[in-house]
Amino acid sequence: MPKTVRKEDFPTAGVRRYLEPGPIVLVSSQWQGRNNIMTLGWHMVMEFSPSLVACMISRGNHSHRMIRESGECVINLPTTRLTDEVVGIGNCTGVETDKFAAFGLTAEPAREVRAPLIGECHASFECRLHDDVLVGKYDLFVFEVVKAHVAPSPRHPETLHYTGDGVFMVSGRIISRRSLFRPEML
Amino acid sequence: MPKTVRKEDFPTAGVRRYLEPGPIVLVSSQWQGRNNIMTLGWHMVMEFSPSLVACMISRGNHSHRMIRESGECVINLPTTRLTDEVVGIGNCTGVETDKFAAFGLTAEPAREVRAPLIGECHASFECRLHDDVLVGKYDLFVFEVVKAHVAPSPRHPETLHYTGDGVFMVSGRIISRRSLFRPEML
Repeated sequence: MPKTVRKEDFPTAGVRRYLEPGPIVLVSSQWQGRNNIMTLGWHMVMEFSPSLVACMISRGNHSHRMIRESGECVINLPTTRLTDEVVGIGNCTGVETDKFAAFGLTAEPAREVRAPLIGECHASFECRLHDDVLVGKYDLFVFEVVKAHVAPSPRHPETLHYTGDGVFMVSGRIISRRSLFRPEML
Repeated sequence: MPKTVRKEDFPTAGVRRYLEPGPIVLVSSQWQGRNNIMTLGWHMVMEFSPSLVACMISRGNHSHRMIRESGECVINLPTTRLTDEVVGIGNCTGVETDKFAAFGLTAEPAREVRAPLIGECHASFECRLHDDVLVGKYDLFVFEVVKAHVAPSPRHPETLHYTGDGVFMVSGRIISRRSLFRPEML
């Protein structure tokens, strides 16, 4: 069973390091005293400061209503240690299942929101709903990351990137081209 | 110098295989008889059919006006063979530079839009602007992929995933958990 991961405060303007590469994330929520988790691959960084992230949360998911009503969630970053939990959580519904209990995950208190952090994840980003103008038309939520927690190492964790058909790409080697960037582009 | 890649027709509903894992893409455009290319990391799949993709294209980029005015672009998928071109294109502006010429890339005619395909890329997705409601507020464009071209192999090309600070994650190994998915989730 995966263990909880000690995380430290991290600047909210820097969450692109973890989200821009496109990993599968686990989105946790709380509404009417119940917790839930969903697996999500359709997200996008929108701005550094305020730290905005867009997520597609289909209204077919129980989490859609929980997050819309509570106006909050936590975006958690799982690594390959949690591959089977990621798949399992994506293949059941929170209407029937307490997913924290079912998958042996630890709901830890967040600082700024009621939705819980997932203790076993590498990073957790506490979010408030920032703009719901496209929720009705597209199920597109714009969140502001109001508090970020990240494990101090490794700097580049082994993340899962979904390609459809039950197949994941696992993050690979790291290369730098820093010397080729204009300073203002870094 | 990288060579052009032969691509085949690909179902537009299937572009998530290439975009959901979160790669850096090259967005090509044409307006007033001139071509341009930008490097882009902030994008998100929004729907299978119609095939919708959201992109953050900052108004500080020359491409922003070209794409807004023309209502078209092509999202091209580079592999690690094009790492230095990806970095170079992201660190100069199309106001001053003909990027196809400067980086030795081949502008190939698209089928449904005027914006050119980039011949050296693994895949090219022709896009029409579908919804500009959040362009003014966030620089967020919603595109419909109207035609997709993909190289028949490899099925999982070696893509670049940007983490900021001039550092890229390169796509790694492929794992399947297909047997653990409910059929309707595949």
